[in-house]
Amino acid sequence: MIQRLFDQCIITPDNVKPSREDFEVVGSFNPGVAEFGNATYLLIRVAEMPKEKRDGKIALPGVENGNIAIDWQKIDTVNILDERLVRFKSNNLMRLTNISHLRLAKSRDGINIDSIDEIPTISPEEPYEEFGIEDARITPIGDRFYITYVAVSRHGIVTALASTKDFLYFEKHGIIFPTENKDVVIFPEKIGNNYVAFHRPLSANPFGPPEIWMAYSPDLIHWGHHYSIIGSDSDWEFMKVGAGTPPVKTPEGWLEIYHYSCRADETDNVGVYYTGAALFDLDNPQRLIGKSEHPILIPETDYERQGFLSNIVFPTGVIVKGDELFIYYGAADTYTAITKLSLQDILDDITKTYRN
Amino acid sequence: MIQRLFDQCIITPDNVKPSREDFEVVGSFNPGVAEFGNATYLLIRVAEMPKEKRDGKIALPGVENGNIAIDWQKIDTVNILDERLVRFKSNNLMRLTNISHLRLAKSRDGINIDSIDEIPTISPEEPYEEFGIEDARITPIGDRFYITYVAVSRHGIVTALASTKDFLYFEKHGIIFPTENKDVVIFPEKIGNNYVAFHRPLSANPFGPPEIWMAYSPDLIHWGHHYSIIGSDSDWEFMKVGAGTPPVKTPEGWLEIYHYSCRADETDNVGVYYTGAALFDLDNPQRLIGKSEHPILIPETDYERQGFLSNIVFPTGVIVKGDELFIYYGAADTYTAITKLSLQDILDDITKTYRN
Repeated sequence: MIQRLFDQCIITPDNVKPSREDFEVVGSFNPGVAEFGNATYLLIRVAEMPKEKRDGKIALPGVENGNIAIDWQKIDTVNILDERLVRFKSNNLMRLTNISHLRLAKSRDGINIDSIDEIPTISPEEPYEEFGIEDARITPIGDRFYITYVAVSRHGIVTALASTKDFLYFEKHGIIFPTENKDVVIFPEKIGNNYVAFHRPLSANPFGPPEIWMAYSPDLIHWGHHYSIIGSDSDWEFMKVGAGTPPVKTPEGWLEIYHYSCRADETDNVGVYYTGAALFDLDNPQRLIGKSEHPILIPETDYERQGFLSNIVFPTGVIVKGDELFIYYGAADTYTAITKLSLQDILDDITKTYRN
Repeated sequence: MIQRLFDQCIITPDNVKPSREDFEVVGSFNPGVAEFGNATYLLIRVAEMPKEKRDGKIALPGVENGNIAIDWQKIDTVNILDERLVRFKSNNLMRLTNISHLRLAKSRDGINIDSIDEIPTISPEEPYEEFGIEDARITPIGDRFYITYVAVSRHGIVTALASTKDFLYFEKHGIIFPTENKDVVIFPEKIGNNYVAFHRPLSANPFGPPEIWMAYSPDLIHWGHHYSIIGSDSDWEFMKVGAGTPPVKTPEGWLEIYHYSCRADETDNVGVYYTGAALFDLDNPQRLIGKSEHPILIPETDYERQGFLSNIVFPTGVIVKGDELFIYYGAADTYTAITKLSLQDILDDITKTYRN
């Protein structure tokens, strides 16, 4: 097991101003992270619910004509799958009980938060963003920051792309991975003539366990050459798996910090989320060099073990300073937290324990 | 209702030589169709099962080291979902009871079949083709024919691309739409600077009814700018929907002949498959001009109503000769059939009954 050299919960829902007076913030988590100027920028997912409760009803928020409207449904028309998710009994379609937007937080030292925007930085507004936007990952390429994020709507769960030069003006570039796809992280440089990304398509009719895939693109918009790279070959049994932070270039290969979840018991719909590390060939990133044998992070602290959903560590951002790897992650689908690990510890663990 | 001007079953499983002596052909259906030289070429899906039966066992075929191996599983370890599909009780993963390859048939008049290759024309061989390749659609562009086809493996149900100049040598180009995606048809020309395709991503966690999507590509390999174009806006209730034939250019717009299925009753896992027609703007194919109000084909004949799966018409190829639209389709997941409709009848039905 790798030792945490430092850890801290750095943003709680109480730190974030709701986007509307009648909403409460239930989560401020899963931050995309980038260094810009002399500061660290975190684009956090802010999940909100209406404060109002109505007897026998459940509130289902969604964007309608540019504003968030609440669809009050009778509670006996739905099955409640977990805190965040319901399924209509009539047609098996799903809806979220909360709606997310992206909000910018800034830190001069990368740990202590100096400011959090008072209003949404990037809001759900497109038809494919109807039920919210979630889980930004940020990759600097050239003079722009590219932001992948999850968008949820009646059209499914997709990954879209946005970009910015300055974290003031953001441009949306549309859907890059259609339904159902989450956990898209873009490599920070072209390999050969192509950009590279990990993505995580999910099968409606599964013929094998969940997997992380890879794809290539000439322009970050059009993606092809899809390959499965982590999953069905694994000795681990998991419910879900997906890329976490954008890949980090190390002398030994591309380091990917990713998540996977395991079911606690038969009735567990969420699972416990762990963090793994994998290393890929620098010139041929389809080639997996190795994986950490054991998780490099498990839910341990109170803020990881108890929250909107419990027992979750979900890495989404990373900053490397020499041997210090600062991992930014969502804790319990509620908090933004940071931990520091030794890069060498992780590389040693991968290369000692498993090698293709 | 549009009148069939002609119909005929043109290929039955009895017409097709099995790829191995110990296999029987259970389906010869869902043909990709193209005109080449002075003939019509049909790339049919040939579905095979082992002849041998074993008490209390079920045969699950799959490619292993370049050959098809049979995995004999105890029948009580699986739930049988329908004739073609089982699900393991232990892990909910699916397997097919039959395995498909693609086989070339030729016809001088487009109706009577003159020859069918005696061996597989395109075989499953890649890791992502482990459980078979299915449902070719052919689009001629320049001097090549581009073939989309479904590949099934432990990595899921994906769409891959192949191409040929002569129907003798075929080149595989890999996965163009990762899991879960079927029913990909490519437009026969670039619109603006991009190739265009319909595709049908399927959500594991559905937030809306099934949909047909559209995407754009600079090179037929990398795809982006994904949009939902038929589905959630519909007044029809269906289980599935997907593009059928490659789009046909008409003076009034791009004509797409597609399929949709409706559940016969609660226990129906397959549904009855109907054929619809939709028209899209010539210059901006994202703009739906209109849809036929009623199906343009429904299962009527014996060969459409009874087979490996029943009550299916599944259009996959089309040839236009003046006002005559020859639709090639799979019937009851068993046969290849053809019907002739009047193009004007279809356009009249669309433009009279519905217009955006």
